[in-house]
Amino acid sequence: MSAAVLCTGTELTRGELVNTNATWLAEQLTTLGFEIGVIETVGDDRNRIAAALVRLGREHDVIVCTGGLGPTTDDLTTEVAASVLGVPLVRDEPSLEKIRARFRRSGRTMTASNEKQADFPRGAAILPNENGTAPGFSVTLGRAVAAFLPGVPSEMKAMFAASVVPRLAGFTRPEAHQIRLRTYGLPESAVNDRLRGIEATHGVTIGYRARIPEIEVKVFASGEQAEGRVVAATADVRAALGDAIYAHGDTTFPATLLAELGVRKATLALAESCTGGLVAELLTDVPGSSRVFLGGVVAYSNASKSALLGVDAALLDAHGAVSEPVARAMAEGARARFGSTFAASVTGVAGPDGGTADKPVGLVHFAVASGRGTSAKAVNFGGNRSDVRKRSAFAVLALLRRALSEELP
Amino acid sequence: MSAAVLCTGTELTRGELVNTNATWLAEQLTTLGFEIGVIETVGDDRNRIAAALVRLGREHDVIVCTGGLGPTTDDLTTEVAASVLGVPLVRDEPSLEKIRARFRRSGRTMTASNEKQADFPRGAAILPNENGTAPGFSVTLGRAVAAFLPGVPSEMKAMFAASVVPRLAGFTRPEAHQIRLRTYGLPESAVNDRLRGIEATHGVTIGYRARIPEIEVKVFASGEQAEGRVVAATADVRAALGDAIYAHGDTTFPATLLAELGVRKATLALAESCTGGLVAELLTDVPGSSRVFLGGVVAYSNASKSALLGVDAALLDAHGAVSEPVARAMAEGARARFGSTFAASVTGVAGPDGGTADKPVGLVHFAVASGRGTSAKAVNFGGNRSDVRKRSAFAVLALLRRALSEELP
Repeated sequence: MSAAVLCTGTELTRGELVNTNATWLAEQLTTLGFEIGVIETVGDDRNRIAAALVRLGREHDVIVCTGGLGPTTDDLTTEVAASVLGVPLVRDEPSLEKIRARFRRSGRTMTASNEKQADFPRGAAILPNENGTAPGFSVTLGRAVAAFLPGVPSEMKAMFAASVVPRLAGFTRPEAHQIRLRTYGLPESAVNDRLRGIEATHGVTIGYRARIPEIEVKVFASGEQAEGRVVAATADVRAALGDAIYAHGDTTFPATLLAELGVRKATLALAESCTGGLVAELLTDVPGSSRVFLGGVVAYSNASKSALLGVDAALLDAHGAVSEPVARAMAEGARARFGSTFAASVTGVAGPDGGTADKPVGLVHFAVASGRGTSAKAVNFGGNRSDVRKRSAFAVLALLRRALSEELP
Repeated sequence: MSAAVLCTGTELTRGELVNTNATWLAEQLTTLGFEIGVIETVGDDRNRIAAALVRLGREHDVIVCTGGLGPTTDDLTTEVAASVLGVPLVRDEPSLEKIRARFRRSGRTMTASNEKQADFPRGAAILPNENGTAPGFSVTLGRAVAAFLPGVPSEMKAMFAASVVPRLAGFTRPEAHQIRLRTYGLPESAVNDRLRGIEATHGVTIGYRARIPEIEVKVFASGEQAEGRVVAATADVRAALGDAIYAHGDTTFPATLLAELGVRKATLALAESCTGGLVAELLTDVPGSSRVFLGGVVAYSNASKSALLGVDAALLDAHGAVSEPVARAMAEGARARFGSTFAASVTGVAGPDGGTADKPVGLVHFAVASGRGTSAKAVNFGGNRSDVRKRSAFAVLALLRRALSEELP
């Protein structure tokens, strides 16, 4: 089954907006068992939209189109769809009333231009929009079922789930099955290499999504015994990747660590230098993190490492801020001041300046302090400032995770 | 002049990767004066790539194609381009030698499959790749100049600038001119409304790029007196947006603040609660920030607000952590401990839990302490956890900026 995604909007063809809608829809449709033949983006241009619709309707079983359902003169999709179908636009009174009610509720004034959002090609099925003014619609276009959705991501996603997926039931195989695994610690090429052959052995599709430095692995199958094949393939994936797999589904690496600390009733504090608050930011991005994470010090200057974390000035003089003894002292200082079960520290040269022959850009020292003592590690990440910081943040979380599993099984 | 962008790769059509290449190329080509007729993405499929190349070559003046130049069997673009052109592939010895040298330098073993990266359609101009193994190439396809680049963003971008832009000189108008302005503090709809009419008055194009909560405004014109029209329009944009414009070009809001602090030889410290390190992270993301930013405390627990920032426990009991008195005490505590010229604090309810009738999710208190005293502010941002944190981070930077301009002009 072949699907096409068509996105309209001059903000997309001018490069003013990254097209995350297309990626999201492609992932959803892939999961439903479609092969995505093409993702096409055209500006707010009558002829281009029309030509794309006609061609995609000839070549695909399903078209999902986003954008161009708004109230302005730039919003052309509905009108173009009607003209391609050779039918007139017809106003739908229930939809108009819903739009009016929406404006009344929000206290805004409805303009005449909003009324056209209740117009649809004659014969179209209307797809309600619970999160905005523009309803969508569905028609048959050539050989394709074509669904038209607004471009606002939150509205589009809710409508796709509520109204489009049920309409695709005839195309998708109900036996489709997917398991998602989250990995950290292996480069994408290594994950790839280790999983070679599993697709063929089990008749599954393995997909990857890299959110550096995390990589998500998706094991998918459709058709007969899809679930059995996915489960068997996933066992092989787990064997091949081992410890690199830290969770399944949507759990992030910081959330996994927080959950593991939480069940052990442990608390955490941080002392960050080169990551500059990034580790704390990743942890506190997780709702409920305050149950485990007490806080941290971003000690960017040497004076602040002494004043806030009690790092001995003599230690800083003797070894420099980027050194194992200072990393240890930072972690121990944070643990003492916050009174936490664990504390972790990061100090390194994020660049672009500040590197020396001894301590090049990319060198980072880590330490984790607990009641059983302090462990330390150093890594040279190379790369640019942003990469060094991101990789350092994940590395210290990984070191914490190891310390946790060794101490509080 | 009409341009098309063609991206190939099943990782894109499966939704495993957001297509930032397409957005970047669309923005570059728009800036060069092209209208982007279509952005098309197809999987690693011979027939689909061939059909797209033939069609785009009929309809556009320029095609930029990315992806499919790698060494694996999935990498089909070069072969398909040759077949569409009806010419054989020819091995280019100098390119092969460059690839070999690259492997030698990095100590990796070159496999036979890498050799095909030195094959090009007969007659193609070769576009060198200084950052990777895959060179690109340029051919005439239908009526279009078609440039083929690798999919790795860093390689693609460098090659586009070095080799593609010069080849487009015949198409672009040398008079094209653009000014970019960065704004903070107005919602996108308000920026839009205030600039209504300026495009028509001056014969320019105004583009927007929202990186919430910042919005970039691009004023562009091509043709006769492009620069004059852009400069005149930009004056109107400046008048319409006033203080919301904080910089032009690529400068971020945190970088602007750091530069302003730097020229005044002022230093900065932070006390963060609900932003959890995000403000520190935004500041330290700027290279050289250590000259101004001394550090910060992420005081997530009440105990840490007292232990690390010296906030009186009685104050916390009387007013709660999310209150103006605690925000003031946090800023003053950070300033005393770090010995900085300025210190700023954020304490609020980021959600999703923890809101009450008095202190709903989204309520955030800010304070800025300096030698002249402490100012405070409260805002209710509403919205979800991630938005509240991001908007809070920018709001405290804005408060700092105002304090700075009032005290150290």
